[in-house]
Amino acid sequence: MKKGLIISFEGPDGAGKTTVLEHLLPLLREKTDRNIITTREPGGVEIAEKIRDVILDVNHTSMDDKTELLLYMAARRQHYVERVLPALSEGKVVLIDRFIDSSVAYQGAGRGLDTEVISWLNDFATDSRKPDLTLYFDVDSETGLARIAKNAEREINRLDLEKLDMHQRVRQGYLELAEQETDRIVTIDASQNLDAVVASAAVEILKSLEAEA
Amino acid sequence: MKKGLIISFEGPDGAGKTTVLEHLLPLLREKTDRNIITTREPGGVEIAEKIRDVILDVNHTSMDDKTELLLYMAARRQHYVERVLPALSEGKVVLIDRFIDSSVAYQGAGRGLDTEVISWLNDFATDSRKPDLTLYFDVDSETGLARIAKNAEREINRLDLEKLDMHQRVRQGYLELAEQETDRIVTIDASQNLDAVVASAAVEILKSLEAEA
Repeated sequence: MKKGLIISFEGPDGAGKTTVLEHLLPLLREKTDRNIITTREPGGVEIAEKIRDVILDVNHTSMDDKTELLLYMAARRQHYVERVLPALSEGKVVLIDRFIDSSVAYQGAGRGLDTEVISWLNDFATDSRKPDLTLYFDVDSETGLARIAKNAEREINRLDLEKLDMHQRVRQGYLELAEQETDRIVTIDASQNLDAVVASAAVEILKSLEAEA
Repeated sequence: MKKGLIISFEGPDGAGKTTVLEHLLPLLREKTDRNIITTREPGGVEIAEKIRDVILDVNHTSMDDKTELLLYMAARRQHYVERVLPALSEGKVVLIDRFIDSSVAYQGAGRGLDTEVISWLNDFATDSRKPDLTLYFDVDSETGLARIAKNAEREINRLDLEKLDMHQRVRQGYLELAEQETDRIVTIDASQNLDAVVASAAVEILKSLEAEA
């Protein structure tokens, strides 16, 4: 049996990673016989979806930054244990829409919480398991926010109400992570058209699957 | 203005601390002019009550121990910031039904998670603020569990379904804490009748209020 892999999809809101993931999946299934599943954070299993509801509730404007961080970590832990670990043990490739780097970018660079504390909590939640490959979808904040505004199908949640400078800090946080962890994070220019972004993502993933083969 | 105080009520399930708290409040208000409020964990404010619902849901049998710990910490943080801190800054005396020691006893001694990690998370959630006084209501596990079973008014929650040995480990955890932190933890024999327990608790609290005066 082949080794299970975690491939995380990261980026600021409006980078389009969720749409890319949808388009990517049939393409990957054509090109490889690896068993691929997709999932998302926060959520992905019942308990984590309940935690997601608490985090994203638009009425929860008084939520403290540390509370938010701890809730994301709780959702991460449960999703990791109930969904990611069993898939890995079956040799599957797990594509996750948001994982550990989101906490560093959003709660660290975005909210100003200590990134070392966040990394420690990430290790606690995932028993120190890092993704095998992380695709960081980079887009400037104006483009990202404009895409969110256009996307009528998607409900506005509490986090969308944050200001432009929050989005800019989040992007900066991602750019720094991508510079620090070059062994696993690949940056993809998400300002390209959808087909081009999907193609770039597919190339990186297939390269990574081949390297493991 | 007098200094705000935190007085926490701790003990295994069935120790009767919630009932004691109810009976104690009118008595204390007779004996002191300090402004006293009561609250509880997990819960006490809207976001923390939502988190409480996730923790105690009887359907959540697959909840991982680390998830549970992180959820308690998230609820603690929010309750601390929204309810405890404002009361302290107004010079109030805050009586809390469960606080930091519950995590050490339940998730540490009970579930077997690292107590140093739990202490670290407690410090993170409360900015290292410890209670000024902790009343530990000690009762042996058989008596505690028998009381829970008799108490028909109270709904059985997920944690009540745990076994006797879990309750015994929790008690052991509390006893160790009480030995380690003699400067703030006072043990009260909760196997006495209600009036006697309430009287013992009142004496300790009034002593502590006088010491601060």
